[in-house]
Amino acid sequence: MRTWNTVAIIGVGLIGGSIGLALRTRNLANRVVGIGRRQESLATALGVGAITEATTEIAPGVADADLIVVATPVGQIVEHVRQAAAACPARALLTDAGSTKGEIVAALSQALAPSARFIGSHPIAGGEKQGPAEARPDLFVERLVVLTPTAATPPEVEAAVTEFWESLGARTRRLSPEEHDRQLACSSHVPHLVAAMLAQATDRAALPFTGTGFRDTTRVAAGDPELWTQILLANRGPVLAALAPFEAALGAVRDALEHSDARALRQALQEAKNKRDAVGS
Amino acid sequence: MRTWNTVAIIGVGLIGGSIGLALRTRNLANRVVGIGRRQESLATALGVGAITEATTEIAPGVADADLIVVATPVGQIVEHVRQAAAACPARALLTDAGSTKGEIVAALSQALAPSARFIGSHPIAGGEKQGPAEARPDLFVERLVVLTPTAATPPEVEAAVTEFWESLGARTRRLSPEEHDRQLACSSHVPHLVAAMLAQATDRAALPFTGTGFRDTTRVAAGDPELWTQILLANRGPVLAALAPFEAALGAVRDALEHSDARALRQALQEAKNKRDAVGS
Repeated sequence: MRTWNTVAIIGVGLIGGSIGLALRTRNLANRVVGIGRRQESLATALGVGAITEATTEIAPGVADADLIVVATPVGQIVEHVRQAAAACPARALLTDAGSTKGEIVAALSQALAPSARFIGSHPIAGGEKQGPAEARPDLFVERLVVLTPTAATPPEVEAAVTEFWESLGARTRRLSPEEHDRQLACSSHVPHLVAAMLAQATDRAALPFTGTGFRDTTRVAAGDPELWTQILLANRGPVLAALAPFEAALGAVRDALEHSDARALRQALQEAKNKRDAVGS
Repeated sequence: MRTWNTVAIIGVGLIGGSIGLALRTRNLANRVVGIGRRQESLATALGVGAITEATTEIAPGVADADLIVVATPVGQIVEHVRQAAAACPARALLTDAGSTKGEIVAALSQALAPSARFIGSHPIAGGEKQGPAEARPDLFVERLVVLTPTAATPPEVEAAVTEFWESLGARTRRLSPEEHDRQLACSSHVPHLVAAMLAQATDRAALPFTGTGFRDTTRVAAGDPELWTQILLANRGPVLAALAPFEAALGAVRDALEHSDARALRQALQEAKNKRDAVGS
């Protein structure tokens, strides 16, 4: 398995910190340079062993990098990749960890030089908790990472970044950026929005009467509002499109309930169970 | 703490089985008679130690009971309490474990003799898995049980059944049956319906791209469609009423998304986080 001399991670939160921890505990990188805005996060990332050195400046941070992973919020990724590409060695591979891909990949195909060795990535891992203190070396084990090459992506860049994620324990799959965004709108972004609105709409008087069901159903609503605002806006077309079938399904069971239609209710709940059972616990 | 000579449990699924296991492991009952329709469930309940004897007939099963707990699906509770009340000793206390209370308590106040010592209960515990093989002696520890006395409930019946649930480790709270149903519509039934419709509306092609967020959000959708059809129908008025604020909240963020209104989105997600954080992980 390939080992790296220097990996630079821009953004040392849960994802960036876990990448660093995974690299370090698997002995896959000699140096892991953490690049962040906040000294406190960098100190925490150093403290937990996720990075071996820290800086608040992108240009010096990526100067010797063989691999650069941009793990900042979706709204900042384009700018951070652009800055990193302008300052890194010609050999360096670049990728990101953003939850949306269409806008980011399209913007970078304009912004980067044709020689830039970038490919978009999205590790489907994480949780409602943020920050490097939550980082885990096994965060990517058995998780899926979607890579989103375009016609312009050099095959060896795709191969090397695929191998990188797999070296952290992940499975990988390739999709076009647009297909990625369509699938994730359905599998992640709409569920997040719905869970959050369920929490928001809950009468405070009812909170003492919640059980494990409510806690599971709304857990993601504890996620960072700013991160999710960026994700939802960056993927608004597919999210709005994926909301429609949910609204239709909910409207149909509301009708069934209004008409006390046990058969229709039971059938809708059975179809829901069939799909949920297909995913596993 | 009061110990029972004979407790009869009608319905030995997850809830009934866990009541039996809790009674047995805490040495709170000499005999636990399991009453069920299916020989297989009764055999499993005997096998895991949740009950000490089993029968498929209610009348002989409750003949010597000091306490009778009806833990069958919501649609059958009224009939089972009625049958038990007709066959049990005059001293016996009766309660149930149904997730809805209004219809059940109202029907029983008509159906039972004025001397019947019944009070409605709802242990807010359980999960998407069913059956006595899933029973756990600690299922009620630190969980809330709502008791729903009416003006006709003898205070000593309420006190004894309250003490019963607390002896299994639960906290208790009293609400009117109608208030219970309003709060649970909001805290449990609407979340269940929404989570199920989210699972149902998910494109099968997107299922490979789901992560822990989707799994948490839709976990309850794996629950028994028949049980939940009965719960939703028995509580349809409050459920329909509690759906409205959710639909309004979702409509508002849909609007915000359509207009790329970052501020409105962020604020809605922040309010959601505040409520979710209040519940704990």
